[in-house]
Amino acid sequence: MLSHLLHLEGVESVVIEKQSREEVESTVRAGILEQGTIDLLRKTGVGERLDREAEIDEGISISIAGESHRIDFAKYTGKQVAVYPQHEVLIDLIAKRLSDDGELWFDTEVVSIADHESDNPKVHYRTADGTEGVLSADFVVGADGSKSLARKLITDDGGLRMKHEYPFAWFGIMVNAPQTAPELIYATHPEGFALISTRSENVQRYYLQCNPDDTPDMWSDDRIWEQLHLRADSDTVTVSEGEITDKAVLRFRSAVTDPMQRGRLFIAGDAAHTVPPTGAKGLNLAMADVCALAPSLVRAVKKSDTSLLDTYSERALPRVWKTQHFSYWMSSMLHSVPAENEMSTLFQTNRRLAELSTVVTSDAGRQLLAQQYVGWDFPSIEAL
Amino acid sequence: MLSHLLHLEGVESVVIEKQSREEVESTVRAGILEQGTIDLLRKTGVGERLDREAEIDEGISISIAGESHRIDFAKYTGKQVAVYPQHEVLIDLIAKRLSDDGELWFDTEVVSIADHESDNPKVHYRTADGTEGVLSADFVVGADGSKSLARKLITDDGGLRMKHEYPFAWFGIMVNAPQTAPELIYATHPEGFALISTRSENVQRYYLQCNPDDTPDMWSDDRIWEQLHLRADSDTVTVSEGEITDKAVLRFRSAVTDPMQRGRLFIAGDAAHTVPPTGAKGLNLAMADVCALAPSLVRAVKKSDTSLLDTYSERALPRVWKTQHFSYWMSSMLHSVPAENEMSTLFQTNRRLAELSTVVTSDAGRQLLAQQYVGWDFPSIEAL
Repeated sequence: MLSHLLHLEGVESVVIEKQSREEVESTVRAGILEQGTIDLLRKTGVGERLDREAEIDEGISISIAGESHRIDFAKYTGKQVAVYPQHEVLIDLIAKRLSDDGELWFDTEVVSIADHESDNPKVHYRTADGTEGVLSADFVVGADGSKSLARKLITDDGGLRMKHEYPFAWFGIMVNAPQTAPELIYATHPEGFALISTRSENVQRYYLQCNPDDTPDMWSDDRIWEQLHLRADSDTVTVSEGEITDKAVLRFRSAVTDPMQRGRLFIAGDAAHTVPPTGAKGLNLAMADVCALAPSLVRAVKKSDTSLLDTYSERALPRVWKTQHFSYWMSSMLHSVPAENEMSTLFQTNRRLAELSTVVTSDAGRQLLAQQYVGWDFPSIEAL
Repeated sequence: MLSHLLHLEGVESVVIEKQSREEVESTVRAGILEQGTIDLLRKTGVGERLDREAEIDEGISISIAGESHRIDFAKYTGKQVAVYPQHEVLIDLIAKRLSDDGELWFDTEVVSIADHESDNPKVHYRTADGTEGVLSADFVVGADGSKSLARKLITDDGGLRMKHEYPFAWFGIMVNAPQTAPELIYATHPEGFALISTRSENVQRYYLQCNPDDTPDMWSDDRIWEQLHLRADSDTVTVSEGEITDKAVLRFRSAVTDPMQRGRLFIAGDAAHTVPPTGAKGLNLAMADVCALAPSLVRAVKKSDTSLLDTYSERALPRVWKTQHFSYWMSSMLHSVPAENEMSTLFQTNRRLAELSTVVTSDAGRQLLAQQYVGWDFPSIEAL
């Protein structure tokens, strides 16, 4: 997306990607797009297939021990979200960049980044056949994921890496079954959380709260269905069953890097921050980052004015922290967590259910949740 | 209040109080009255002095590292709160009960409660001069505070006592100084929480977050003023200084007893539950308890119908848990808490400040806080 935005303003860029195009496009990933992401894709000419194929949701259900409550996004925010997996967004962006003769170097690994404190940073790379080379640029952006090489240059030089570990994880399954419900269901129950989401009419994605150390062999099909029905069936819904085609454990982590820049090196998306999957914010936050970054880079390249670029980090971080809080809040409110003893655990379970009750039974609570779920306004890419 | 409500319906009661009338009336305590408590006092003829003397607040300020945000109760809820200390409420209620020839036995200690599973429970008591006696009654209500003797009969018999300990406390001071601001200020800062509240035009009550193990000698006057200014001064306010007349450490605890009844024994207020002081909910929750209890007792005594009384606990507990959550939420959002290491602590500090920012800068957030602060509707005492 950053490369695409730069291209639209006539600034050249090279995207270096370790994986092959096929790997990137076929790695199936989740995806709920905020209104801001939907608008960005549409506005920049890559929203056509999204508009044709994505499921648009105007709300979610929160199911509390079998009692279902709808959070109406349209009513409380006038906005929507789209169920459109991340790899589909990548497929559309890659096609667009290639049709615009963009430089996408697949199967190419970045070995190191150098001289980023100078006016002429360099990226050392190695192609699939072992050829090494050096790319010289005006600026380098590390959008290289949670194990970011670029981030290390910032944290090694005094940048902070703030973290939170969660005492739970998700056990995710892919199922060949009809859709359980037209919108996502966030279900909580004294035994734990469950999420009922969808990939398509006939492929569903379900998640169950589990222990971080659980392995797939601890979850038999029988246990999975028993727990899904216990946690997510409600007065209005019964979880649809089918053949389970995939089982995996997803760890929960939060992390934020501050600052998100050093010299002529910038980091964005998972390279800078990790959110737990509860709020479905990962891709959306990355999109907001590049909206904060792109106009600054354009101004720096075209007008040799780096004043906007110098404030990238401080402009991006408030949204990062609000998003971290939303993901943390949704996670804490919906998952059951054992405390130091039985009576502390029961205290927290009851408090948590009272919090949920306060949120889902008041307009203020439903609105506060809805506004954060659909996302805050994006940084303007018209800021040039 | 319970005795007063019963009297208004023609049901006799005896109040047994360990302390003398003078001790009860002169033990200075904090007090923010919810709209429901204000209405209850007015409606039952004990609101006259409150209306004459209490400071009515239509909002609070939340100060975030020196930036002040007002939460407008009138705008978001149409309700108010009254700054009227708890002992003043007691003075008014005691005067009223005595003028109605109510039976208030001061200086009388309850030794034990017996036969509460029968139709004829008994209270063994001992007066100040050592005389012992037995009071026989139809029903016994333990409103005997956080160290409740009545509660023990319920928990010894399988009742649950669910708890939470907080990793911080409040260092409270009483100051002879002019009012700092017309409304309460809840201030947060990386160094911790501070609360600026008032007793009267010339006597102020300030609190500083401290460690649970702190002692008054660890807080010199210089340190107190330095920390109060650091944490609570803002763009609009400077904390007013004066002679410090009292220093004390207040521990933070949450606890809930379930059920709040057994046979013909019932518990209410602090005997049943403890809340931390952050939300100022203790007295208000006790008032709501007795509003849930009084009509049930009247019906049981007058019509020999205990069906309503049987559901006291399940009617009272949802409010108790929502109030526990509000107190926990306010406490967690406003206090700084060290985590397992420096980077976790910084994560939580920044997340918490982002939460506060989301709450105070959105109508939904401000309304959600205001609604909980002014309190939910009270159980109707017209339910007879």
